[in-house]
Amino acid sequence: MIRLILLVLSISLTASAQDPLLTKAQRIFKPVPGSPPALRANPLTPEKIDLGRLLYFDPRLSSSWLISCNTCHNVGLGGVDLLETSVGHGWQKGPRNSPTVFNAVFNIAQFWDGRARDLKEQAQGPVQAAVEMNSNPGRTVKTLSSIPEYVSRFEKAFPGEATPLSFENMAKAIEAFEATLTTPGAPFDRYLKGDAKAINDEEKKGLEVFMAKGCTACHAGVNLGGQGYFPFGVVEKPGSEILPPQDKGRFAVTRTASDEYVFKSPSLRNIALTAPYFHSGKVWDLKQAVAIMGTSQLGAELNQAETEAITRFLGTLTGEQPKIEYPILPPHTASTPLPEVGAGPRPAGH
Amino acid sequence: MIRLILLVLSISLTASAQDPLLTKAQRIFKPVPGSPPALRANPLTPEKIDLGRLLYFDPRLSSSWLISCNTCHNVGLGGVDLLETSVGHGWQKGPRNSPTVFNAVFNIAQFWDGRARDLKEQAQGPVQAAVEMNSNPGRTVKTLSSIPEYVSRFEKAFPGEATPLSFENMAKAIEAFEATLTTPGAPFDRYLKGDAKAINDEEKKGLEVFMAKGCTACHAGVNLGGQGYFPFGVVEKPGSEILPPQDKGRFAVTRTASDEYVFKSPSLRNIALTAPYFHSGKVWDLKQAVAIMGTSQLGAELNQAETEAITRFLGTLTGEQPKIEYPILPPHTASTPLPEVGAGPRPAGH
Repeated sequence: MIRLILLVLSISLTASAQDPLLTKAQRIFKPVPGSPPALRANPLTPEKIDLGRLLYFDPRLSSSWLISCNTCHNVGLGGVDLLETSVGHGWQKGPRNSPTVFNAVFNIAQFWDGRARDLKEQAQGPVQAAVEMNSNPGRTVKTLSSIPEYVSRFEKAFPGEATPLSFENMAKAIEAFEATLTTPGAPFDRYLKGDAKAINDEEKKGLEVFMAKGCTACHAGVNLGGQGYFPFGVVEKPGSEILPPQDKGRFAVTRTASDEYVFKSPSLRNIALTAPYFHSGKVWDLKQAVAIMGTSQLGAELNQAETEAITRFLGTLTGEQPKIEYPILPPHTASTPLPEVGAGPRPAGH
Repeated sequence: MIRLILLVLSISLTASAQDPLLTKAQRIFKPVPGSPPALRANPLTPEKIDLGRLLYFDPRLSSSWLISCNTCHNVGLGGVDLLETSVGHGWQKGPRNSPTVFNAVFNIAQFWDGRARDLKEQAQGPVQAAVEMNSNPGRTVKTLSSIPEYVSRFEKAFPGEATPLSFENMAKAIEAFEATLTTPGAPFDRYLKGDAKAINDEEKKGLEVFMAKGCTACHAGVNLGGQGYFPFGVVEKPGSEILPPQDKGRFAVTRTASDEYVFKSPSLRNIALTAPYFHSGKVWDLKQAVAIMGTSQLGAELNQAETEAITRFLGTLTGEQPKIEYPILPPHTASTPLPEVGAGPRPAGH
């Protein structure tokens, strides 16, 4: 028995002695928790989450009945649309790359420039943007109120409220559903929790370089990012192809000169799934994106081996993707505002 | 004992004596079966069905990475897009209303004009149509072959084949998945199986009118339609708004003069969910659609009560909608052809 205790003791001493990398990583990063966090002024209930699931997939939130939240934040594609910039109403191209909805609840604010305080504020944006879903609060409320199942679901999700069905509550339900879209169980998270074999030596090397080079200044915490605002090009501005001069980032929100070309650092969770990269979506290759970050943010030309090691480490951030049952959407009625697709181009011959 | 036997005998005699309507209906219609039918040259396996599920939801089958089968045949919206005519690549409007994918496997052929023999032939159409997904077999095979999980899933779905991953096998897998998209358990089906209370008296009245007026000439069998080709306007052509003169229907397939304005009669299964109606998608109100059918097909002005009764009966054709887990789509690689969204309109201000 004493031999056994000594053996266990020696193993655990060795383990902690052997892995200062883990100790350091644990101070900087946190695993994705297994359940969603509490939301500001929006308690999670099963009824609200389920209503949010329906709304998230319902294209009737757009004026064309063609675009849902899932169009640009596809839950089957890492929570993004895999496009340079999103395509919305009338096939218009949006100005920025679609950020992933997965783990977005852990970000300090929403949108690349942080102009929405949280997901319920964010959810109201695309519904109204002419370049995205091209609707408005009046039309949205009219649409949802015309569908009896939505009326009763809003009553159950927001019990006791004078007006359960409102544009704000639509956004709250979507926020509640989105808060469940987390991806725990990534190899890196298992490593953070003490499973030394969860990531291999090359990936550990990448983690080491990632921390040593200072990437963690912008990419730390649960989301390895999403916690602050930083100029794209701290050290050296990338070319205008990657950093288009007309998009001044957070400057448009704060009107402060020092916020020109400042963006919220994106989360690196599931980054291997969410190409193309940067707010401009101009870079498809993760290794190239890492190299650009080295030059522009760190002023450190990363050598090939370092870039590759970091890229391999980033691959350990892919977590378990959420399993979602596709909702059966409730039927519209005679009082539902009909879709407005607009003229659009006519194909030849028809 | 003898009294009991006499009682049972008398009840069953009464039941069948009381419901000649059911007896007549059972001769004309069949309930949706609980499991998918066997497919021509395409045995159903779990591996093939599951691969088909991924492909059905994968927008990377389109050149823009924006349009999947589910865009126009939305499994949350009765298997349709609820649009007059579908919107595809570049926001182009297609020429005809999107038919539902639900129970489509029971139709004699696919498309409004029956130009595809079955669902595997159908599935190859929209992928290639410039106005829909705007891709081609070469690009599709290159895309799927560049994604390791697809390569291995095709191998498992088509074991022993020399070239498991092909455009044809993509279509076969989609057909296999679509064959599972049936909607059994509609109130009318429970009635057909002998549950006299499954539909109410007004709905029974509608069934009676439906059969008495001759609607069953085109709408019978499992799908209440989908089994033959009929001129739109047998008796009287509807206005050009509803029957656009340039779309001559099956004539384009057969080049036979008698096939001008001939279309496959659509299934009436889940018809209450799948507005707008007709190949032109010009009619949103089911009652109005019924009235138009009365005039144009039967030469019988249905009175208000008859139109309403038939409409109520049609409401009993809504079955259990399929429950589907949204697929986690496998990630692309460096050799995957990138999305081509095209120029498209630029929004003002960006």
